[in-house]
Amino acid sequence: MKQIFFTPGPAELYFTVEGHIKKALTEQVPSISHRSARFQSIFQEAEENLRNLLSLPNNYYIFFTGSATEIWERIIQNLVAERSYHYVNGSFSNRFYKIAEELGRSPVIQKAEEGSCAVVDPEKIPSDIELVAFTQNETSTGAAQPLDDIYQVRQSHPEAIIAVDAVSTLPYIPLDYTQVDTAYFSVQKGFGLPAGLGVWLVNARCLAKAEQLAQQQSIGSYHSLPSLLEKARKHQTPETPNVLGIYLLAKVVSDMLGKGIDVIRNETKFKAGMMYQTLSEHDNFTPFVKKAEHQSRTVIVTETRKPAQEIIQKLQESGLFLGSGYGHFKDKHVRIANFPTHSREQFIQLIDKMNAIL
Amino acid sequence: MKQIFFTPGPAELYFTVEGHIKKALTEQVPSISHRSARFQSIFQEAEENLRNLLSLPNNYYIFFTGSATEIWERIIQNLVAERSYHYVNGSFSNRFYKIAEELGRSPVIQKAEEGSCAVVDPEKIPSDIELVAFTQNETSTGAAQPLDDIYQVRQSHPEAIIAVDAVSTLPYIPLDYTQVDTAYFSVQKGFGLPAGLGVWLVNARCLAKAEQLAQQQSIGSYHSLPSLLEKARKHQTPETPNVLGIYLLAKVVSDMLGKGIDVIRNETKFKAGMMYQTLSEHDNFTPFVKKAEHQSRTVIVTETRKPAQEIIQKLQESGLFLGSGYGHFKDKHVRIANFPTHSREQFIQLIDKMNAIL
Repeated sequence: MKQIFFTPGPAELYFTVEGHIKKALTEQVPSISHRSARFQSIFQEAEENLRNLLSLPNNYYIFFTGSATEIWERIIQNLVAERSYHYVNGSFSNRFYKIAEELGRSPVIQKAEEGSCAVVDPEKIPSDIELVAFTQNETSTGAAQPLDDIYQVRQSHPEAIIAVDAVSTLPYIPLDYTQVDTAYFSVQKGFGLPAGLGVWLVNARCLAKAEQLAQQQSIGSYHSLPSLLEKARKHQTPETPNVLGIYLLAKVVSDMLGKGIDVIRNETKFKAGMMYQTLSEHDNFTPFVKKAEHQSRTVIVTETRKPAQEIIQKLQESGLFLGSGYGHFKDKHVRIANFPTHSREQFIQLIDKMNAIL
Repeated sequence: MKQIFFTPGPAELYFTVEGHIKKALTEQVPSISHRSARFQSIFQEAEENLRNLLSLPNNYYIFFTGSATEIWERIIQNLVAERSYHYVNGSFSNRFYKIAEELGRSPVIQKAEEGSCAVVDPEKIPSDIELVAFTQNETSTGAAQPLDDIYQVRQSHPEAIIAVDAVSTLPYIPLDYTQVDTAYFSVQKGFGLPAGLGVWLVNARCLAKAEQLAQQQSIGSYHSLPSLLEKARKHQTPETPNVLGIYLLAKVVSDMLGKGIDVIRNETKFKAGMMYQTLSEHDNFTPFVKKAEHQSRTVIVTETRKPAQEIIQKLQESGLFLGSGYGHFKDKHVRIANFPTHSREQFIQLIDKMNAIL
């Protein structure tokens, strides 16, 4: 039975992807050289479309990697000589912190309970910190840091590089890119694409920092920022990339531009509102994130009275595939993705079924 | 006009790929979780099929990365504290050497003319060298190092790790994996898949070396060998990988097993024989690699009397897409891929057209 995937990534494909893949096959996109003019125009199309969709300032570059996990590593290699500061409130924010450790840095951790967001107190951040890492949307718990918390650090620590993990929230989140320095995502979540591509948004300050760091230590090789930039200037990548993935990104972002980012954002809020309303009225469910202002609109996590697997199983029999709780929450939580590909009708269908069978 | 891509990667898709992609879409493979049992069985299928096709010994692991370029970096990070030894005879072997430098090691270079292979003289290799890197098939020039040259170093330097770049030669090459320690490829060449996936074959000695190295320095993070192994034991990857790519690899290798590796190898030799014969008889062409024992059978590079771009253009008009010369050979060479997906009939068609129009 065909499922509608409400899993928080890999997720339901954007509804136009299948058509784009078939067209790509007809056009033999997977066979073209990554050094050809045809590839360059695909790269450029993806870049320009993304720039428009996200209202990305001109001093930002767009680079492609294998995954967002890779971007965690590249951020530390390129932008941190010794100390980064990490707000950690779940598995993914913690993984980024651990990667900084594994790469031999001395990161500082600021923990918050899972299901909550850190209270951002700029006074606690060392004045000479090199980079402050926010996980704007912690996919494991559904806690979303308010953007003003992030911008506050820009005011208090203007010299620090501010990195925003927007993996499961873009393109929904209206991030003010002038108040941060880098943000990143992987395409298998909000963009509804097959996994295997990370997208790294980086401003000129990051490039300058990487070049400065390169004077004193290795900043990596083919995926160092200067190497990525050298190729991106020619609309290319250092390695043979996921060409099909970049093609599909260009096409899906074009479709999103056609729909309009405001429409996407309003629909996202509307669907999230319906779902949180349902959860609050339902005996079986309680939103895991208690504070309304921290409740993610793109990854909605709920505690369940009945065993979570039982609920997931029942809905699956109706063709509605929800995500398990993450890690130690596997039996206690259900995660519901609310991405641009999910229509209001699909959400109503899901809510009706949740009410009917539980 | 649909082209037959004889380019050396990205290349013509294996002739079954389109069908497998359509089935994957029907089965919603791009939406499944990379932590699900379904993904684990796809990973396992890819692994077991590859193990069979390549006759990989039991002490080898199979890991997935974003590209073969990434594997160069991971090899240096995980397996070299200070010094690797690089046979360099073209752009790709040179790039690996440069990556070792960029990662702060002190690699040793042993150069050979482009279009030739190094004379392997074990006495020149430092006795305490940590790793010896062979590019078995230099994709930029079409020079292929005889396997016995590689095995010689196993005898002379039994302590050294031997790394074989088999990017554009597997699955053709019958490598004796007991005489080396690691080999790697990317899927967009001999396996005829969309780009965006590297495959890293690693034996237990490499794991031991990485664990030992980790005691004294950082060996990376999510794609360190111990991290890759921890997940691979569960048929998973540390990051969300190119799930569709791994699925397609499993299916195409299964198709290749159905055909039989011996048949694939014999056909490769037969097609290469036809092409070199044609080149040697044709006024317009001279094989760039002069020594017959160094002529690659999977990437055939020829010098051209007429401008290479003119020849490529003419054949393209007949739906036959050849590769340009690499780098500074762009106007002087034509590169012809001879991969498993290219049928004998397609090669005859290409040869007929080369004879007819030139």
